[in-house]
Amino acid sequence: MTEANAPETLDIPQLQKRLRAFAAARDWEKFHTPKNLAMALVAGGGELLEVLQWLTDEDAMALGEKDRARVSEELADIQIYLVRLADVMDVSIPQAVEAKLAANAKKYPVDLSKGNATKYSRRGEE
Amino acid sequence: MTEANAPETLDIPQLQKRLRAFAAARDWEKFHTPKNLAMALVAGGGELLEVLQWLTDEDAMALGEKDRARVSEELADIQIYLVRLADVMDVSIPQAVEAKLAANAKKYPVDLSKGNATKYSRRGEE
Amino acid sequence: MTEANAPETLDIPQLQKRLRAFAAARDWEKFHTPKNLAMALVAGGGELLEVLQWLTDEDAMALGEKDRARVSEELADIQIYLVRLADVMDVSIPQAVEAKLAANAKKYPVDLSKGNATKYSRRGEE
Amino acid sequence: MTEANAPETLDIPQLQKRLRAFAAARDWEKFHTPKNLAMALVAGGGELLEVLQWLTDEDAMALGEKDRARVSEELADIQIYLVRLADVMDVSIPQAVEAKLAANAKKYPVDLSKGNATKYSRRGEE
Repeated sequence: MTEANAPETLDIPQLQKRLRAFAAARDWEKFHTPKNLAMALVAGGGELLEVLQWLTDEDAMALGEKDRARVSEELADIQIYLVRLADVMDVSIPQAVEAKLAANAKKYPVDLSKGNATKYSRRGEE
Repeated sequence: MTEANAPETLDIPQLQKRLRAFAAARDWEKFHTPKNLAMALVAGGGELLEVLQWLTDEDAMALGEKDRARVSEELADIQIYLVRLADVMDVSIPQAVEAKLAANAKKYPVDLSKGNATKYSRRGEE
Repeated sequence: MTEANAPETLDIPQLQKRLRAFAAARDWEKFHTPKNLAMALVAGGGELLEVLQWLTDEDAMALGEKDRARVSEELADIQIYLVRLADVMDVSIPQAVEAKLAANAKKYPVDLSKGNATKYSRRGEE
Repeated sequence: MTEANAPETLDIPQLQKRLRAFAAARDWEKFHTPKNLAMALVAGGGELLEVLQWLTDEDAMALGEKDRARVSEELADIQIYLVRLADVMDVSIPQAVEAKLAANAKKYPVDLSKGNATKYSRRGEE
């Protein structure tokens, strides 16, 4: 794929426009409720877990071709459902990501967090 | 937020570079295995389900401010873990998304899929 | 199945003994870490979501034979991984269930909770 | 807890009867659709992942008291939603478990499966 056709950015509004058109052409908007899309997103996550669940960390880094293709497809599915869900719920993903990165930088100062799984734990966030 | 600071695109390689630096500064690369990141991604999905699980479709489209903020944060978390996982596993998200959209267009021709939950079903993909 | 063979109780210690023997005979204990079993449990949950995700509530209550068989299999998978995980982590499921039911009865008094999705919300628990 | 009060069996029909009464008293039956219960079950699974996600296998086997209590509570939640969902969908968990164990014994003969993560993989089931 040339860089012109698939630059390594996701143009979220453009992708949302395409997904909207895809759904509209098939009369599928009625299926795309927040709950249904969240279920589909997590189902994609479940398939990711299924590929990885019994593997060692080493094997997970050296997947065979078939498993790699499956991981790639599930990552795409999750991305697509995430972008569609954000559209339906009117959330800006880029802005939400920036806000979360800023919060993480504040929550986990480098000097207190270094190599520390406990500090790292999301339970620490609560 | 001005458009200059938060354009509505995700520059995936740049975001991955930032996440890599964030992890490296805290000596957290060792935690970022494919399995751990997939678990964290799905845990974020689980929190999304938790916000939505008892709501009607109508209520899910009209969340209060607190729930809206929580959804926004979880969508950000999922996006961040997805981008980090793709980095660690060396998958291009934009290319995987394009490939999946092309496959979906082929799999669900407009005339056969119109308003049809059965055809829509992902089980039909298998 | 006769009632003698499949009474409607789950004898957890006996089931755990069978699962232990099953794993031991195949030299699979090494795969049965808490993380791996939790991943497998949630992957089963993801498949459940996949069956239900695009259905109306009415359709979900009137599944066809094939979907019903799939739901039944996934419920079994989840139960099996849950019981195996509890064994590996040395948690008593019946005691944990009793403790949770007692906590729920206290947290959701009948008069305050009646028909109330907000009170019902698990977010109220935090 | 004495054995008389908490024998290590789960009497599924009795537990379902209690859960039904609990829901009925609060007028919560309307929330207990298959989709909602499946979401709640997987949300519980997500919290399990959250406890375990950054831990080594060793640490996951030696949780502190607080994490252990949280795991115990999530296992209970999953069990409760599983039993309630099976009730609503009219599936017998004990029978489904027996059927799945029989299928697994057939699918994974000891001599072919010994220590073999590939054979073990659920992907092999498809």
